[in-house]
Amino acid sequence: MIYDAIIIGRGPAGLSCAIYTTRGNLKTLVIGKTDSMLFKADKIENYYGFEHPIGGKELFETGEKQALRLGAEIKEDEVVGIEKTDNFKVICVNGEYEAKTVLLATGAPVVKAPVRKLDQFEGNGVSYCTTCDGFFYRNKKVGVLGYTDYAVHEALELMAFTSDITLYTNGMPLNISDKHKDSLSKLRISENKIKELDGQDKIEWVVFEDGSRESIEGLFVAYGSASSTSFALKMGIATEGKSIKVNDKMETNIPGLFAAGDCTGTFKQIAVAVGQGAIASRQMIEWVRKKR
Amino acid sequence: MIYDAIIIGRGPAGLSCAIYTTRGNLKTLVIGKTDSMLFKADKIENYYGFEHPIGGKELFETGEKQALRLGAEIKEDEVVGIEKTDNFKVICVNGEYEAKTVLLATGAPVVKAPVRKLDQFEGNGVSYCTTCDGFFYRNKKVGVLGYTDYAVHEALELMAFTSDITLYTNGMPLNISDKHKDSLSKLRISENKIKELDGQDKIEWVVFEDGSRESIEGLFVAYGSASSTSFALKMGIATEGKSIKVNDKMETNIPGLFAAGDCTGTFKQIAVAVGQGAIASRQMIEWVRKKR
Repeated sequence: MIYDAIIIGRGPAGLSCAIYTTRGNLKTLVIGKTDSMLFKADKIENYYGFEHPIGGKELFETGEKQALRLGAEIKEDEVVGIEKTDNFKVICVNGEYEAKTVLLATGAPVVKAPVRKLDQFEGNGVSYCTTCDGFFYRNKKVGVLGYTDYAVHEALELMAFTSDITLYTNGMPLNISDKHKDSLSKLRISENKIKELDGQDKIEWVVFEDGSRESIEGLFVAYGSASSTSFALKMGIATEGKSIKVNDKMETNIPGLFAAGDCTGTFKQIAVAVGQGAIASRQMIEWVRKKR
Repeated sequence: MIYDAIIIGRGPAGLSCAIYTTRGNLKTLVIGKTDSMLFKADKIENYYGFEHPIGGKELFETGEKQALRLGAEIKEDEVVGIEKTDNFKVICVNGEYEAKTVLLATGAPVVKAPVRKLDQFEGNGVSYCTTCDGFFYRNKKVGVLGYTDYAVHEALELMAFTSDITLYTNGMPLNISDKHKDSLSKLRISENKIKELDGQDKIEWVVFEDGSRESIEGLFVAYGSASSTSFALKMGIATEGKSIKVNDKMETNIPGLFAAGDCTGTFKQIAVAVGQGAIASRQMIEWVRKKR
């Protein structure tokens, strides 16, 4: 089955868009983990329409109920990849889904992996995109920096190029779904805390806090959840800094792919995200109508 | 007393902005009549955060309570003019107020006056701006098309140039506040329904449905409430069609003057208006900080 619209992200931008696309008669699937920034908001008093402060969790849940009531489908899952086919294929930890149009509403790009000298080796052995750069590391000794399903997904993708892959969790406890547990056996796993990266012109060493070091030829960063930035790199979505570049219709440079909310680098407010979600919906409805 | 911010309009764009400016420590005054488009919305189900549909009136009232609770001041009044001084002077039916920055959130431009051939004589005797064009009608026989305080205000302004002024209500009942009732005696009033305007190259006649006609040299349109378009004409605010032209920061071409919501010609949705109000607030707070 092909959805009309898949919305990646369950925060205000995504749900506002879903409310509109559903009412606009698009078969709409919202995918995301229950980890919107909203949850960190204890008390929201600047979103129009609520006399008294409302908790972030409450707003999140109310918004979901609203979208469900109108007919949207919501899946708790983590998106690890998006591919452009005739439509769009959205790859999650627990399944793959296809849609005619996609909205990126993944929130603010995740915080950088806390590893010293990561920046310094970007483009010199440090990559954020297995799809883009995996090919350059055929039969080489590579690492994936991460501890979640997303990191395992990236590691598995690298297996097309090399079998010498270490998952560096940087001291973080592994947070992997059942689906990926078996795959872990194909990987070497290092749970040591990393002190820094080292090398001459390009990355050569991972140096641990206990003073030990391991040689490496490439390191792929997939720390935490896949962010809009990861999708941008893999799909060639134009960015400005770490944000998805959109025009005033919320269109990215890829036809049929839209973005809204914090991932567009806008004023990071619920009000703005909700407005952008609505604007995006109008274009998405238009897009699907033309495709039908 | 000078306000930091005056917000013209009591709909979602204006109130969302007021919520932010007040929290941003700006002394904020919201002015408008209780006539937001919201009131016409019986049931709103596409604004994020409400599981069940909410009435437009209820949302309007809740939003006002929210802004009041945070410290905004709200006045029920009709704005008939804005003047650029060192700050901005906002002229209402019942008073004048001054502020360092102003937001136009007046909603969609009002419907055109329903008079045939009005378009045809635009620029040829038909004007939407007494401030701009009054001077050209010194000692001439002019009319003002309208029936509200705004029309009387415009007629009074024309008295600087001519005393031969007829208020054409086009069959509408006069809707004038006490403040202006005395001024009516200075005007000739015609409550006949107009059939059309007539003239060769420029306006010469007002033709009534009963077949009678009156000669005229100029007709100033001030039908219904003063809209964003009226302010734009008077102040030289750049427009696109009938909408206020803003950039992605909600800045108009006049420094310190911002616009948000339906008057900017955007997707006419509460979600979008609320987002634009928030974005405008950020610039207004910045503007006042620089002025202090």
